[in-house]
Amino acid sequence: MKIILDQDALFDNNKAASFNRDIFAKSKTVVINVMSSPGAGKTTLLEKTVSALSNEFRIGVIEGDLATERDAERIRAVGAKAIQIETNGICHLDARMVSKALPEFDLDEIDLLFIENVGNLVCPSKFDLGQEHQVVILSIPEGNDKIVKYPVMFRVAELVILNKIDLLPYLDFDIEQAKKDLQGVNPKSEFIQVSSKSDEGMESWFDWIRSLFER
Amino acid sequence: MKIILDQDALFDNNKAASFNRDIFAKSKTVVINVMSSPGAGKTTLLEKTVSALSNEFRIGVIEGDLATERDAERIRAVGAKAIQIETNGICHLDARMVSKALPEFDLDEIDLLFIENVGNLVCPSKFDLGQEHQVVILSIPEGNDKIVKYPVMFRVAELVILNKIDLLPYLDFDIEQAKKDLQGVNPKSEFIQVSSKSDEGMESWFDWIRSLFER
Repeated sequence: MKIILDQDALFDNNKAASFNRDIFAKSKTVVINVMSSPGAGKTTLLEKTVSALSNEFRIGVIEGDLATERDAERIRAVGAKAIQIETNGICHLDARMVSKALPEFDLDEIDLLFIENVGNLVCPSKFDLGQEHQVVILSIPEGNDKIVKYPVMFRVAELVILNKIDLLPYLDFDIEQAKKDLQGVNPKSEFIQVSSKSDEGMESWFDWIRSLFER
Repeated sequence: MKIILDQDALFDNNKAASFNRDIFAKSKTVVINVMSSPGAGKTTLLEKTVSALSNEFRIGVIEGDLATERDAERIRAVGAKAIQIETNGICHLDARMVSKALPEFDLDEIDLLFIENVGNLVCPSKFDLGQEHQVVILSIPEGNDKIVKYPVMFRVAELVILNKIDLLPYLDFDIEQAKKDLQGVNPKSEFIQVSSKSDEGMESWFDWIRSLFER
């Protein structure tokens, strides 16, 4: 048995993604779709990013979760506007859900919009949200075999962020192997290492974001 | 947009699940579907379990992954028969995939069959594989908020195993809160804490498995 992606619905998703893309272009908003397994550290990374960059950019965040408003509350607590999408059990965001959230923002006043997807290393990779950039976070405790075991996700990444490098002393994770595997699955992807807890490497992530405004 | 679960296909899944259930009953095989996020430690837990219990039970393992035969190879290395199902990008196992793998085993010679599902904290919860028991692993690095954020998965668990407790000194994880949240989402679920790395708590998991044979 397969999950059937209804073709009309996929067509609708692509239409909604196009619609979103036009809106983002018009408002000159840089949009980044952030994806990972549950618990890889998406929200913590975004909290730190909002704190560090909110004097450079006007930042907004869309939070996708199956249930609860918790992640949006965490982002609001560090001072950015955040809208929560609850998917009610659906395993990914789609472009329509994002379309519906957009009127909550005044996008002319937003330079940088993060869309934090549902924690899932498979399904979100298949749905264009209209964003220009896609980032996948992999965390040290997940193990370095995840790139070859979940290639559908790593194939769509423009940047892979290896997070929780503060845990390297306590876990077996072969970073060189991970880089080699990423090279095999998606040779165009960039790769950086950070700890959103200790802040190590976070400056290279911030520089990557800054570079998006210079392209 | 929604992922549409084709009704005929769901019906087919339930038929295949029933078929599997009959086969398991006939061979008196205890079957456990093991689910978690990517990297929560399913395969390591099963490696340790096979090593510890293979003189008590004849054990087989079905491994589900989007790609690669790696997990099956790890299980074979510790001496159990393992069959790999590659889902080719599908985010969960279904009962038909399992049906097709079953002829690879002589189930009359298997007391205990583990089905390690695709690493995903959403989709596998929706597909009955014909198993009698469902276990969900949550790991310390994922954070204690996962139970309320992914209730669809924790609702179907008969047992939640909190894994990687050896990492507690390095991470903020509120075990009491996790227990309370599980109580809210699924009051019938049992809860144990283990480290499949240090072996702490593993005996209670083995006892839980032994209890399945006494019911």
